[in-house]
Amino acid sequence: MSVDVAFTPASLAKDEVAGRGVFVIDVLRATTTMSAALYHGAKSIIPVGSIEEAMKLLQTLGSDDVLLTGERHGKPIPGFGLGNSPLEMTESRVKGKTLVMTTTNGTGALLATAGAAHVYVASAVNLSVAGARARQLMADGVDLLIVCAGRDGRFGLDDAYTAGRLVMETLGSRVRLDGLNDAAVAAVDLVRRYGGRWDLPLVRSAAGRGLEAIGMADDVGEAAKQDRYPVLPVFHDRRSVVVPG
Amino acid sequence: MSVDVAFTPASLAKDEVAGRGVFVIDVLRATTTMSAALYHGAKSIIPVGSIEEAMKLLQTLGSDDVLLTGERHGKPIPGFGLGNSPLEMTESRVKGKTLVMTTTNGTGALLATAGAAHVYVASAVNLSVAGARARQLMADGVDLLIVCAGRDGRFGLDDAYTAGRLVMETLGSRVRLDGLNDAAVAAVDLVRRYGGRWDLPLVRSAAGRGLEAIGMADDVGEAAKQDRYPVLPVFHDRRSVVVPG
Repeated sequence: MSVDVAFTPASLAKDEVAGRGVFVIDVLRATTTMSAALYHGAKSIIPVGSIEEAMKLLQTLGSDDVLLTGERHGKPIPGFGLGNSPLEMTESRVKGKTLVMTTTNGTGALLATAGAAHVYVASAVNLSVAGARARQLMADGVDLLIVCAGRDGRFGLDDAYTAGRLVMETLGSRVRLDGLNDAAVAAVDLVRRYGGRWDLPLVRSAAGRGLEAIGMADDVGEAAKQDRYPVLPVFHDRRSVVVPG
Repeated sequence: MSVDVAFTPASLAKDEVAGRGVFVIDVLRATTTMSAALYHGAKSIIPVGSIEEAMKLLQTLGSDDVLLTGERHGKPIPGFGLGNSPLEMTESRVKGKTLVMTTTNGTGALLATAGAAHVYVASAVNLSVAGARARQLMADGVDLLIVCAGRDGRFGLDDAYTAGRLVMETLGSRVRLDGLNDAAVAAVDLVRRYGGRWDLPLVRSAAGRGLEAIGMADDVGEAAKQDRYPVLPVFHDRRSVVVPG
């Protein structure tokens, strides 16, 4: 039984993903925002790789119940109805809607999980439910892989700390070296360094500092609220993120 | 002024390397072994990407003062005079020789540093001299980049801890968030977690466990000896690793 962490999706080999239970983390902010939207009644979220693809999909689906959402360099995309802030995902805006979403790192990480047995979306706001599912998968003999979105293909402190929290949530007091790869060991080391405080690693990360610099520090605070949106989004059919009803 | 860490060479963009002072770390074992060989009088080390390239270079250079050295999957390469163990690099074997070296991760990391202003080889065995040079470069206004070889394109705990030690050696008590990227912050966090004990992160890493599994635990012990080989190898002209005389 193994619990591995990948600090970026770039390093993933296809045979690493195959057959595993995968949890994708982009705590600042895509996977946090997805949980917020689905918690507030969004029907589904379709992650796409580019702005062009999002526009095209809107034409195909029709605009009635579809919202374009996402960011580039942290900022809302011109012509898109919503950005990538969990605070925007209110019930009045998203209930019953399909969100077509493109973000710099998070949606790419989801799309890199081809071949996985199950793909879930995790962050602080749904940590406990994600951990419960991870424990269930392990009990069923499924190996786990936690994929951090990172930042522009590089290590992100915010996602790495969150990955460590999910490893500890999964293994509880049984955290042992056996069955963890080096990244999982280091992620747990980060948790031992920062303890239970979400705010410290999130604010300290480049992603957190970047959001603060563009006036979006409130999003960091929201993303740091453990179990704020206790739903478990599933990346279904490699197409859309839904909370199974 | 910045001190960045890359946990793998794969994530490096060319503009990140350009003009920087770069330190390459593959503590288990390539950069440790390079320091050992040069300390014991090897004339130079030519890192190459493949076994074939090594063979070809041997033909070009002639075999009189040239030794083939390296490993695949940790083990010596058939037909090569030396493996990749620092303990093999005795004066009687290497003095005055040119070593043509190919290893799974370390030589590739060196070859990924195109465009750097200076490229040095670092590990525990030359930490203090590497740190002294890093401080000097910073004083001269040169930005630093510490490149971990990692393991098969993935995060390696051994190299990450060593990178953290080099960051702290460079910045001393002045370690502050400003000017460090997320990987550098996490590397320093690992040092705060493990303290000054080289053996713990090295033995715990996948590379360390792999060496133990093939009966090479002594190499891990040797690599953990801080300042055992106090030379500063320079990757010269993007061709050979030498200690400037």
